[in-house]
Amino acid sequence: MDFLSVLILVLMFLIRYNMTMADGNSMCHSGNDLNLGSVRDSLIRQEDTIVFSLIERARYPVNSRLYNQTLGLISGFSGSLVQFIVKETEAIQAKAGRYENPEETPFFPNDLPPPLVPTHKYPQVLHLAAASVNMNEDIWDMYFNKLLPLFVAEGDDGNYASTAASDLNCLQALSRRIHYGKFVAEVKYREAPQDYEPLIRAKDRDGLMSLLTFKNVEEMVKKRVAKKAMVFGQEVTVGNYSSENYKVDPSIVSNLYSEWVMPLTKLVEVEYLLRRLD
Amino acid sequence: MDFLSVLILVLMFLIRYNMTMADGNSMCHSGNDLNLGSVRDSLIRQEDTIVFSLIERARYPVNSRLYNQTLGLISGFSGSLVQFIVKETEAIQAKAGRYENPEETPFFPNDLPPPLVPTHKYPQVLHLAAASVNMNEDIWDMYFNKLLPLFVAEGDDGNYASTAASDLNCLQALSRRIHYGKFVAEVKYREAPQDYEPLIRAKDRDGLMSLLTFKNVEEMVKKRVAKKAMVFGQEVTVGNYSSENYKVDPSIVSNLYSEWVMPLTKLVEVEYLLRRLD
Repeated sequence: MDFLSVLILVLMFLIRYNMTMADGNSMCHSGNDLNLGSVRDSLIRQEDTIVFSLIERARYPVNSRLYNQTLGLISGFSGSLVQFIVKETEAIQAKAGRYENPEETPFFPNDLPPPLVPTHKYPQVLHLAAASVNMNEDIWDMYFNKLLPLFVAEGDDGNYASTAASDLNCLQALSRRIHYGKFVAEVKYREAPQDYEPLIRAKDRDGLMSLLTFKNVEEMVKKRVAKKAMVFGQEVTVGNYSSENYKVDPSIVSNLYSEWVMPLTKLVEVEYLLRRLD
Repeated sequence: MDFLSVLILVLMFLIRYNMTMADGNSMCHSGNDLNLGSVRDSLIRQEDTIVFSLIERARYPVNSRLYNQTLGLISGFSGSLVQFIVKETEAIQAKAGRYENPEETPFFPNDLPPPLVPTHKYPQVLHLAAASVNMNEDIWDMYFNKLLPLFVAEGDDGNYASTAASDLNCLQALSRRIHYGKFVAEVKYREAPQDYEPLIRAKDRDGLMSLLTFKNVEEMVKKRVAKKAMVFGQEVTVGNYSSENYKVDPSIVSNLYSEWVMPLTKLVEVEYLLRRLD
């Protein structure tokens, strides 16, 4: 058993008995206290956010008019209604400083307005040359073209604005989780630079990927997110009756993690590490 | 036992064994199939949304700079940063047709832009003269000045945009739930107009309020939302360990319902009914 595995086991124990996230503290951390424990706390807490956001999106049917590129619904804007809503909402959030936080990555990074308000000074935890990794195009494609059809009902109920707001919550939660790979990579790199540097210098993507892969941890994450989909997506009644009718199929959430969230996170980690010595 | 109580019991049974909301259908309904069952389904499903939104807001500390009226952070806008973000986000959602849905009520109804896209034809279920009841000023005050300080941690982590987006989710979920009183009132009125008309003509608010009050139902709702706060706010692990450390105190959610959500809903119902014969 290597050092990292022991560290992970110790941290799992600590997380289990000291769930500081339950106190409502934020996910941002100063550069000094970045460690695998705080990173794992955040990843675990973000699972809840992702499951909540999927359950909320499932309140609406697919509402496919939102995603039609060719309807030309909005004069002066070429794109779908959901692109319009996400772009405009990101612009407002940028004015309030959202993208000053290195944990947040915009889907429409071009032409974002600057913050209108004095912003928080986030500690510079990430390596500057590597911090700009942005996989949101892949996340957008995965979410709309692969994930969404799996868990929403057919049909159109006209709630385009609410549906798009739910889509944005899902996209932002997935994007934050996947780009959190930058923090994962940074903390892993700092723990054992000697393991990473030769692979980075050799641009050995496969070597980095295998160094970042822990099958047993991934299996546990898959089980945990499926359980979260069951717990959060059940019909809660005052009595002991419990429904098997989950609002989002737990196996879809488990597959979301194994097929997309974890592979894309590791891709972010690899991309980040490849720029870590620049 | 009166007819309405029997009806409620039958519907509770039906809801228990036929939770159609689990299939991801929407909450909107055609005028023809509006009934106490569909209304109750929607109210129960909306509890989940409210609890999720509070849990998500609790990820951030209070971040009180968002709420300061006097900082004058944004040139050309007099108000707090959260007012700016909510107003601007509502404007985008209005362009996508959000407020065409009679279930949605804006916090900043003045100067809302018209929809940019062809909108869904919602069936006209509500009585036109009564549909415009808007209690959002009270809901805004309740949320920011009474509820929020009860369940978020002290402090400032700089995540103003994300915090405001979470506030907006809470506000919209609470507003939708409370204004759903219009549908509750409409369906109750249709079931027994002879009970309501004399009280409406006499403008007897107290009489209407007591006709709309079912203490045992309210007690059950309080218990159910507290249980939802426990179930959705627990730390979920792969093992059987379960934490008593809920992300939002269940008694706060229970009190939110008994002190604000249910009384404000009944106020919406009374205001709606007072205009029902106009």
